[in-house]
Amino acid sequence: MPVLFAAAVEHTSVLLSLFLILASAKLMAEIFERLKQPAVVGEILAGVVIGPSLLGWVQPTDLLSIIAEIGVIFLLFLVGLETKPQDIFRVGRKALTVAVLGVILPFIAGYFIAVLWGGSFVEAMFIGAALVATSVGITARVLGSMGLLDKETSRIILGAAVIDDILGLIILSIVSGLANGGVSLSSLGKTAGLAIAFTVVVGLGGSRVISWLAPRIDALKVSKPFFNIGLILCLGLSVVSLYFGVAAIIGAFLAGMAMAEATEDNPKVHQLTSGVTEFLVPFFLVNIGMQLDLSVFRDSNVVVLAIVITIAAVITKFVGGGLGAYGMSRREMAQIGVGMIPRGEVGIVVAQIGLGMAVISQQFFASVLFMAVATTLIAPPLIKIFFAEDKDKDGKMDEFEHHDISDEYSRIG
Amino acid sequence: MPVLFAAAVEHTSVLLSLFLILASAKLMAEIFERLKQPAVVGEILAGVVIGPSLLGWVQPTDLLSIIAEIGVIFLLFLVGLETKPQDIFRVGRKALTVAVLGVILPFIAGYFIAVLWGGSFVEAMFIGAALVATSVGITARVLGSMGLLDKETSRIILGAAVIDDILGLIILSIVSGLANGGVSLSSLGKTAGLAIAFTVVVGLGGSRVISWLAPRIDALKVSKPFFNIGLILCLGLSVVSLYFGVAAIIGAFLAGMAMAEATEDNPKVHQLTSGVTEFLVPFFLVNIGMQLDLSVFRDSNVVVLAIVITIAAVITKFVGGGLGAYGMSRREMAQIGVGMIPRGEVGIVVAQIGLGMAVISQQFFASVLFMAVATTLIAPPLIKIFFAEDKDKDGKMDEFEHHDISDEYSRIG
Repeated sequence: MPVLFAAAVEHTSVLLSLFLILASAKLMAEIFERLKQPAVVGEILAGVVIGPSLLGWVQPTDLLSIIAEIGVIFLLFLVGLETKPQDIFRVGRKALTVAVLGVILPFIAGYFIAVLWGGSFVEAMFIGAALVATSVGITARVLGSMGLLDKETSRIILGAAVIDDILGLIILSIVSGLANGGVSLSSLGKTAGLAIAFTVVVGLGGSRVISWLAPRIDALKVSKPFFNIGLILCLGLSVVSLYFGVAAIIGAFLAGMAMAEATEDNPKVHQLTSGVTEFLVPFFLVNIGMQLDLSVFRDSNVVVLAIVITIAAVITKFVGGGLGAYGMSRREMAQIGVGMIPRGEVGIVVAQIGLGMAVISQQFFASVLFMAVATTLIAPPLIKIFFAEDKDKDGKMDEFEHHDISDEYSRIG
Repeated sequence: MPVLFAAAVEHTSVLLSLFLILASAKLMAEIFERLKQPAVVGEILAGVVIGPSLLGWVQPTDLLSIIAEIGVIFLLFLVGLETKPQDIFRVGRKALTVAVLGVILPFIAGYFIAVLWGGSFVEAMFIGAALVATSVGITARVLGSMGLLDKETSRIILGAAVIDDILGLIILSIVSGLANGGVSLSSLGKTAGLAIAFTVVVGLGGSRVISWLAPRIDALKVSKPFFNIGLILCLGLSVVSLYFGVAAIIGAFLAGMAMAEATEDNPKVHQLTSGVTEFLVPFFLVNIGMQLDLSVFRDSNVVVLAIVITIAAVITKFVGGGLGAYGMSRREMAQIGVGMIPRGEVGIVVAQIGLGMAVISQQFFASVLFMAVATTLIAPPLIKIFFAEDKDKDGKMDEFEHHDISDEYSRIG
């Protein structure tokens, strides 16, 4: 119907944005695949190109950030579907040391860099906090595309990322408490306790509940019952996790993990879910790229600070995460270290909170933003290199080996 | 992370709305399936229950209407994937008469009812226009769930719905031209010409272009190349169709139809797409239900008017659509007639335009809204009854026969 009609029902400009994002992401993914580089990097750079920094075809909006978040939520749900609880618990202790060392080192580095650059105590605490939290979405995407999610090192990375999120929460609570003039130890303990209790209870009990419910789910008359229950559980636990002070993606991951055993012999659930992620994840990646505002880097001071923070973020996480896996082979330690590098949207958010509370300056904000995007761009090629020899030719979500005829699952489609 | 963090990154209330919509839709779908009623009706009623009319848990927002629109766009894309162009062209002449008679009769009925109720000339023209356009999403969903999309009558309904949309566009152009004080025949001709040209060219040529491109698509290095090209084409043609004055869902349907032959032996594309639709279509259905504001029906005048308009809308579309299929068996004529009944969001939009131009009164607006939702609720049980004997036990999207073991495609998941 004409413009008149279009204006009323149809969201022409929104649909156009979605089209531009998807088309540019896949174009860049194709180019990067041909250059033997990870597709995710191409998709993030697509966001830099079409976003406000360069072409300005698409602006970051609330709507796009919501679609991006739904995308990463379903990505972690899919990763959870391929992760049985015992796979994580078996590596629990190692994941804990990886998470703790991978949090301490970047925090200290961020703190001292900020102090050296003339930041106040609170400012330095914020920069430290912004360097802490691993954004597991990127790593999960790359490992999934290489078919390596069932490796022990992948599981340690996933487990550590979950613990990381809780540690990040505690640190952010302390730091924003300081910015607000004080920290109450009891409220801090309550926050942390709730987050830990939620994660442990759902992680331990979810799978049993779903396995017990499985015959009842199977008896439902609604179409595709396991997939639909999975969707509801994924969104439901994402919301509940927020109320318990944990990131939504952790809830989604726990939801997937709860369903992993019950749907083990049910490849359709995985495939239907991968239809959703294949559609929505590009919005998550492009949205990260769109956050980067290249214009702040006209100031050479900011450039130097941004590069220093980025290098520190990469090295401290690599060393901290790697050392946490002490006792494994050096190659595995290195694999875990690189897997923890991406900060992605989590670092951006911490910096935004600091900016919103008017406790960090624009130069620090811009530098942390750069660090968040840069670590996300640096990690995938490193992951590809460090995991190259382990690449699973039958990988379920394989993007790289798709010329292998045997890889039917990923290739067809 | 805590409330602080949640407020910044995570869209807690949005995720909660999405969860409530999906969970209530599937709960109602399950109840309706057990009562041997169509699941779609349950999902629309879920919108009435949780929407502003009753519980008020979820409010219709721009974001939800966009997600709803993406849902119906992908539904029509999936329907297109199962429809080869020749299937539609073979029934072209019949579809044309079905569409034309199914447009003329409701328009006349709407016009005279409005005049009888004291409406002005322009008001009566608007009410007529609001009764015209079939909303094919609902019918496609029900027929798809019964596995009947490859029936001749289904194809006539689909073809007629496409033509319907173009006729509706012409009528709406005339009516809003009149409301604005005049109609330019040349601009009207141009609008109609562009819409018809776009539909015919893409409908005829799209499939050939994609078949010609198929080996190149297959050679792409990006993961799931056919599915990703399909997503891009679906969004792209949805946007382009709006510029040509055709509804986005028509563009999505044409995109699916263009890919139907090239992906015929590629069930993964259908299944990945059905993952997307299974997730998003409930938002489309619930959103229709949420539009209904039951409080306007405290006025008994509006109740009578709404019921009269609804009865007229059902009968005239049934008779007009059915007569258009003259020459087929009476049962097939009746099947086509009921398939054309749902007005859904299209009727709502026409009424909204009239309200926005201040040419129709609140009582007519409320009645048309009621008619749009009511025809959408009435049609699925009628479709189920009239098509009962043809139900395909191997139906690909079967929701009703899922206890049939042979029906693996739909059941598993």
